[in-house]
Amino acid sequence: MNKIITIIPISSFNNSKTRLSPFLSESERTNLLKVMLKDIVSNIQDHVSDIIVTSKDEYVLNYAKYLNLNVFKEKEHEHDFLNNAISDAISYISKNYDNYSVMILPADIPLFNSRNMKYILKNRDDFIISPSKGGGTNLLYINREYNYKPLFGAFSFFKHVQEAKNNNLDVNIYDSFYLSLDVNTPEDLGEILLHGRNTHTYNYLSNLNIGVESNHGKERLYVYRKNE
Amino acid sequence: MNKIITIIPISSFNNSKTRLSPFLSESERTNLLKVMLKDIVSNIQDHVSDIIVTSKDEYVLNYAKYLNLNVFKEKEHEHDFLNNAISDAISYISKNYDNYSVMILPADIPLFNSRNMKYILKNRDDFIISPSKGGGTNLLYINREYNYKPLFGAFSFFKHVQEAKNNNLDVNIYDSFYLSLDVNTPEDLGEILLHGRNTHTYNYLSNLNIGVESNHGKERLYVYRKNE
Repeated sequence: MNKIITIIPISSFNNSKTRLSPFLSESERTNLLKVMLKDIVSNIQDHVSDIIVTSKDEYVLNYAKYLNLNVFKEKEHEHDFLNNAISDAISYISKNYDNYSVMILPADIPLFNSRNMKYILKNRDDFIISPSKGGGTNLLYINREYNYKPLFGAFSFFKHVQEAKNNNLDVNIYDSFYLSLDVNTPEDLGEILLHGRNTHTYNYLSNLNIGVESNHGKERLYVYRKNE
Repeated sequence: MNKIITIIPISSFNNSKTRLSPFLSESERTNLLKVMLKDIVSNIQDHVSDIIVTSKDEYVLNYAKYLNLNVFKEKEHEHDFLNNAISDAISYISKNYDNYSVMILPADIPLFNSRNMKYILKNRDDFIISPSKGGGTNLLYINREYNYKPLFGAFSFFKHVQEAKNNNLDVNIYDSFYLSLDVNTPEDLGEILLHGRNTHTYNYLSNLNIGVESNHGKERLYVYRKNE
């Protein structure tokens, strides 16, 4: 059976998730990224052979080591740095592993759960793509040693599906609500508060006194900080 | 095997989906509701025994008849009219059918697809609940003749799960991105334009010259009308 090697690319802990600013301070956004990474790791670590965090940022790489993860320091690229970094990581894997498949996950999907992991394990012979809110890709599972070109960025879900077809791959589109919920906006935090009771991220947000209520305005959820 | 009777409650065609105003005019919002209903019907009609549209609105009931659906005229209730209407419809079903299960779906989930329907058929012995964006419920499948009390409204997903536990039911939480996407905001229209290529709703929105682009502001999608 193929070993599953997971790549989690993280650009930086500093000044990221800016759409959550000024709702969360910079240090809170850094902490949020850390707890979200912990959640994804705790849900997959018993089921995959290796987890490799890729980054250019030493702070990220050191934190990944602290969590006992493997790290891959990204090279400088002039353009399309996320996809080039992932391609580099896949090349690194091809030189260091045999009989592997590659699962690429973002670090900001704390609702990814054990049922999601079970689905991947059960369908590990398939080439799997899972959509995110807004047309992106929240899981790309390359089931064997294809020279498959990652195409993350705007509307990547459709690009990934097309690229798979161009490679004559039979795509398994994994339709999951929990996996679709990456965290970019205050409303996304609301979804985590609603659905993520057992997560590190939920505990962190609760400790910041962030609350959520149902809303009938332009957004479905009203997310707020208590006592402010 | 149980017959599946589907209830689709629709409050009104007029002046509904107000969060889409002024992006869509009132008549456009009415047409949108009609095409979304067509989509859900076309995806389920070959797989369920009966589809019953419940409403107080004669216009809705007449349109449902035009689509060859069954109709159930809601009684007046002083409060909690959606849940009372659904309870009335379940009572009606209990008097007119044997060996049935009840599937309750909203009329505004045009991405509900044949794979979603297959999942329900495959798991038709389970009690099934599916989350919507914002804490709601987009599918409630009552697998036999329980006296199960619907609890639609704010954060109904969690109320439905709790109510099932109170009834000692083993809940199958159906985790689906496409099923989670009910249509309430312009951004939701963007998701339909991205993922709903084969739907009546997609065609209708395209004919209105509505477009979608990726966005990095407060929302993931920028939805706009061309030439305006």
